[in-house]
Amino acid sequence: MSGNTFGKLFTVTSFGESHGLAIGCIVDGCPPGMALTEADIQGDLDRRRPGTSRHTTQRREPDEVQILSGVFEGKTTGAPIALVINNVDQRSKDYSNIMDRFRPGHADYTYYKKYGFRDYRGGGRSSARETAVRVAAGSIAKKYLAERCGIKVRGYLSQLGPVKADKFDWDEIENNPFFCPDADKVEEMEAYMDALRKEGNSIGAKISVIATGVPVGLGEPVFDRLDADLALAMMSINAAKGVEIGAGFDCVTQKGTEHRDEITMDGFLSNHAGGILGGISSGQDIIVHTAFKPTSSMRLPGQTVGLDGEPKEVITKGRHDPCVGIRATPICEAMMAVTLMDHLLRHRAQNADVTTELPDIPAQA
Amino acid sequence: MSGNTFGKLFTVTSFGESHGLAIGCIVDGCPPGMALTEADIQGDLDRRRPGTSRHTTQRREPDEVQILSGVFEGKTTGAPIALVINNVDQRSKDYSNIMDRFRPGHADYTYYKKYGFRDYRGGGRSSARETAVRVAAGSIAKKYLAERCGIKVRGYLSQLGPVKADKFDWDEIENNPFFCPDADKVEEMEAYMDALRKEGNSIGAKISVIATGVPVGLGEPVFDRLDADLALAMMSINAAKGVEIGAGFDCVTQKGTEHRDEITMDGFLSNHAGGILGGISSGQDIIVHTAFKPTSSMRLPGQTVGLDGEPKEVITKGRHDPCVGIRATPICEAMMAVTLMDHLLRHRAQNADVTTELPDIPAQA
Amino acid sequence: MSGNTFGKLFTVTSFGESHGLAIGCIVDGCPPGMALTEADIQGDLDRRRPGTSRHTTQRREPDEVQILSGVFEGKTTGAPIALVINNVDQRSKDYSNIMDRFRPGHADYTYYKKYGFRDYRGGGRSSARETAVRVAAGSIAKKYLAERCGIKVRGYLSQLGPVKADKFDWDEIENNPFFCPDADKVEEMEAYMDALRKEGNSIGAKISVIATGVPVGLGEPVFDRLDADLALAMMSINAAKGVEIGAGFDCVTQKGTEHRDEITMDGFLSNHAGGILGGISSGQDIIVHTAFKPTSSMRLPGQTVGLDGEPKEVITKGRHDPCVGIRATPICEAMMAVTLMDHLLRHRAQNADVTTELPDIPAQA
Amino acid sequence: MSGNTFGKLFTVTSFGESHGLAIGCIVDGCPPGMALTEADIQGDLDRRRPGTSRHTTQRREPDEVQILSGVFEGKTTGAPIALVINNVDQRSKDYSNIMDRFRPGHADYTYYKKYGFRDYRGGGRSSARETAVRVAAGSIAKKYLAERCGIKVRGYLSQLGPVKADKFDWDEIENNPFFCPDADKVEEMEAYMDALRKEGNSIGAKISVIATGVPVGLGEPVFDRLDADLALAMMSINAAKGVEIGAGFDCVTQKGTEHRDEITMDGFLSNHAGGILGGISSGQDIIVHTAFKPTSSMRLPGQTVGLDGEPKEVITKGRHDPCVGIRATPICEAMMAVTLMDHLLRHRAQNADVTTELPDIPAQA
Repeated sequence: MSGNTFGKLFTVTSFGESHGLAIGCIVDGCPPGMALTEADIQGDLDRRRPGTSRHTTQRREPDEVQILSGVFEGKTTGAPIALVINNVDQRSKDYSNIMDRFRPGHADYTYYKKYGFRDYRGGGRSSARETAVRVAAGSIAKKYLAERCGIKVRGYLSQLGPVKADKFDWDEIENNPFFCPDADKVEEMEAYMDALRKEGNSIGAKISVIATGVPVGLGEPVFDRLDADLALAMMSINAAKGVEIGAGFDCVTQKGTEHRDEITMDGFLSNHAGGILGGISSGQDIIVHTAFKPTSSMRLPGQTVGLDGEPKEVITKGRHDPCVGIRATPICEAMMAVTLMDHLLRHRAQNADVTTELPDIPAQA
Repeated sequence: MSGNTFGKLFTVTSFGESHGLAIGCIVDGCPPGMALTEADIQGDLDRRRPGTSRHTTQRREPDEVQILSGVFEGKTTGAPIALVINNVDQRSKDYSNIMDRFRPGHADYTYYKKYGFRDYRGGGRSSARETAVRVAAGSIAKKYLAERCGIKVRGYLSQLGPVKADKFDWDEIENNPFFCPDADKVEEMEAYMDALRKEGNSIGAKISVIATGVPVGLGEPVFDRLDADLALAMMSINAAKGVEIGAGFDCVTQKGTEHRDEITMDGFLSNHAGGILGGISSGQDIIVHTAFKPTSSMRLPGQTVGLDGEPKEVITKGRHDPCVGIRATPICEAMMAVTLMDHLLRHRAQNADVTTELPDIPAQA
Repeated sequence: MSGNTFGKLFTVTSFGESHGLAIGCIVDGCPPGMALTEADIQGDLDRRRPGTSRHTTQRREPDEVQILSGVFEGKTTGAPIALVINNVDQRSKDYSNIMDRFRPGHADYTYYKKYGFRDYRGGGRSSARETAVRVAAGSIAKKYLAERCGIKVRGYLSQLGPVKADKFDWDEIENNPFFCPDADKVEEMEAYMDALRKEGNSIGAKISVIATGVPVGLGEPVFDRLDADLALAMMSINAAKGVEIGAGFDCVTQKGTEHRDEITMDGFLSNHAGGILGGISSGQDIIVHTAFKPTSSMRLPGQTVGLDGEPKEVITKGRHDPCVGIRATPICEAMMAVTLMDHLLRHRAQNADVTTELPDIPAQA
Repeated sequence: MSGNTFGKLFTVTSFGESHGLAIGCIVDGCPPGMALTEADIQGDLDRRRPGTSRHTTQRREPDEVQILSGVFEGKTTGAPIALVINNVDQRSKDYSNIMDRFRPGHADYTYYKKYGFRDYRGGGRSSARETAVRVAAGSIAKKYLAERCGIKVRGYLSQLGPVKADKFDWDEIENNPFFCPDADKVEEMEAYMDALRKEGNSIGAKISVIATGVPVGLGEPVFDRLDADLALAMMSINAAKGVEIGAGFDCVTQKGTEHRDEITMDGFLSNHAGGILGGISSGQDIIVHTAFKPTSSMRLPGQTVGLDGEPKEVITKGRHDPCVGIRATPICEAMMAVTLMDHLLRHRAQNADVTTELPDIPAQA
């Protein structure tokens, strides 16, 4: 496959299928000397873990991570860090009803044609289970960014189907099962999800991630721009269909005077750019939004074809998230953290000794 | 900088500044044996070229491309193809009014901080002039995709500020200066642009690109998904702020039953996926939308700071596109073509001999 | 560290320390559909395994490999193949006598300076134990090359210190603990090693690897030449100090008429080139020789300094190979197999459809 | 071809054929702020240039380099540096006698089979002319290494056929047409070359390169070791057949006590390691030897086959170096400089802030 490594200097190489023995990754390029234990990683894994509310899949996976290498006497060594998470709850029988046919909107068909076989067990490699590995790797990047550079990466669900978060409170996000920053909308979301589950349908969502404290200068134009790599990072997550930096698609109807973020020595006067100018971080908050499509696995029957080429009706009875977006918040955070980490190292390599007389412009006036 | 190479097997390595001697690139990985002359490339360059209507910058660049290597007796040899475009019309004096200060919303500030100097001449490396090189490289990819695989990559402007294209006619696109597929909206766009120019302001736009004839199977999960690499490709273009595959952000409010594209042996019944499932092409049309922000260079004054740290007012008098999106259509096409070409080669390497009993599902029922 | 991935399309990403929990790797890029079980890998691991004769380290490691992913119903899926080998016999106490000082000729000092800490336990990441992972990954490449392309990769010890193999018999190689192809020299080698062990010293060796059945065309000039990548592959093995292709350093004193391999339609008349011309395989046998230095860990005292900057005497009492070259044969085979596999895939990507009227020249007249 | 980029952070992407319009490259990753003009590059190009003595090819190429980008007001900008050298003296008629047949020992045959066509004009892409580009790129690396880090990279011819340099004097090297450090052997070399030319034959050579002032710590195990990348770098040069680090193949017969370089706080007591331990620079001089085979193009007739599959006799009358090794000294220097530069940047990215209490061991006691 050879597409399972992310990053250039801080690399994550991922492995594992939904119903194989284990999933995991090798994180290569973490600088030596950072304190690291499994506990540092487990926190984010628990946030992504299925089965923590009635609104996500009921598959029971403890998602316990083990560090196999790269840490000596509690500190990173500079050697590759291998992380393994054993699969525990693999109820493959759940998939018997889709073994011989393709779920519309799912990777079933394209994997079958590309690789020449059908791994019906929970989507095999195409399963969202793979994203646990990203969260684990992201925790390492997050820790380094926070401890060494004061960079903080945090995400939230900004929209669940028709329900938008209007108010914003970071403290609220971990208080509800949706990572919703608006306490007033939680009840509406719960009601929406309950109805959806009863209906047997699924729904899309929008996840936003913000990085604060990012220094000016990260990003390697003209192709390895920070925004371009963030777009790749987010779009590489299962079910992602759109990515925006800052104003995103709103800028289509914005005039220049409206979009540009004016500058004073006290700080930028706005942040439509989402913290990136010319593919390089400006010192403002990095803001990225990602659209997640509704899960293709659902109880409502749909038209499809079988491996035998005959028309079939498909119904998915397995344990699935009716809204994959809900658990996507820690995944988006992880992908942003890994991307920033990679660019931090790349920037250091060539530009670490650049100095200018002008001090950095503060993030916000 | 080291971020100036795009692709893994079909690679484009770009060089050149807006007001240097020349811009160009090395295209490495083009299979041998394809007929290729400068004329094959010049067509797309002329479509992107500035100064072809009153709605784009009046800089006069013939953008004549020269092939320095990789072609022997009219055919590609498998060796790297070097393309060079000389810069002709470098009126650097135009930039005297911004030499000592940063344009808000422009890469001026971030380049200055990252690289430690100020190349005021038309943005130097951050200039949109660099995209001519992408168009040239894209032409080679387009030609191969068309001749060897029957893949066609075409783009259009789907929205210019508030004016949306409603009707769709491929034949109309080259008949107006906007690449607009809706003849009825051209007049409105012209009026809008004329008013905008008079105002001294700029505006955003949305460009759509569609690839037809793409076989099922392109894309290398879990990171080098086709959609992820397309997102990188598009977001790496100057002024891009958002990327959507198929339904894009609309899928946030779509239910599963609405979004999924049902399957029959006569073809898929819809294409909300935009031709990509699980990061792999499905055989349907690949559909990508990109949002371009309004140009930061404009005549209306804005607040900024100078290299001396003092507050300044900035006005850009140079020759600029009031809507960079207008000329972005061939650039988006080029980036999609290059991405598809890279993935075509990658797919061949590992999966070329995969066969399945089930025939391919046609693109559309 | 970020230098732990080998290859471009067929990639091996390695992890693990000599005395950590486990070592292993992720093999990405293996085409789908090849039968694969642990047994296919174990054979080569057992050939490299320590403790199989009195001439190698007495560390007891069963080196049992486990496949965690990438195989479904006994066949490769195209997804990354994770391999894990648990460390069993980690007698860290053996290293107490070198904890505070550097072994001359060992990576002790450079690792300490680069990474800022001292992992005294058997060399940590710099240990030859890491090569077990290469052998495991190489087995997968070997199997594919043999089954799909008829390529066979085999190695042998051509020289142990002063004792050269003169006669050549492939069948003899697995009959002695040295991988020596000359039965008449085995006794001499045993006597040499016994004396050396008694003396407490160590010795160098030369390993040769030959690949037969390699088609003409593998190699990507001008930098990713097949010989260049083989040189990297071999020199990346612990203790390697020299690499030769074909005639190697003998060609310094060869005249052109002597070195060139004349061509007839019945085959090449000699093979001084070692099967590679212009960085591309010629269809002849690929021949590579690698020089391995004597182990730096030995009982005879040497002058060094301590972590405290004071002069010290160093004696290594741990379990070490007095001649690391002995066990290097399967490692060299593995690195050649992985390199050929990577180039096979790369060649397919761009040149698979090239045809010429002239048939291939046979390997040997 | 896609194998025309060298390096990971400091990258050289090469293009051009022996008898095309031009050769050149893009150097990406050079840090900003270094003074650079064409004159800085021309010096090394002139050392490699053909036709400077009767012992090299009489092709007249001024090899004048032009910088197209990446330099602004006399300093590098951090943007890619494009270098172009026009081909001037392309006497293609010289090749008429080999158009229809393959030179034994030359890349003629393998290029033909891989790419499907015959570029008879001086070897096309496989020509040693391509190495001029490496020398140009190497000059940039050399300048940075010298100015910013005090690293000096210098080479010499240590053996020409049977004639070895015995004495060593850096000052002598530029005083003779062979880069020979032993003034007493120059006459012998001249006589040998004159006889060889009369005979119409060619001969091999050995080139050595030494880098002084390299800090401890460069190299990224376990695969991207400094020695492994140097082996790739050297073996990627036309006609290279062997690479040694330090003692090289001599270590096959060395005992551990003999090979290991003992350590004192006043410096290492010897340098058999060639300045690299465990794939990481030790602070000692980096020493690399490369074997170059005799040119395959020569006047003495040889057996071969034609494009028509018929047996042919081949005689090369074109202008060729009877000993390609003679001009290889600046090429080997360039490849070492580029490799060190790449590793310097990589090291900075991850390990720049590592500190140890123990001071660095001096290179030599």
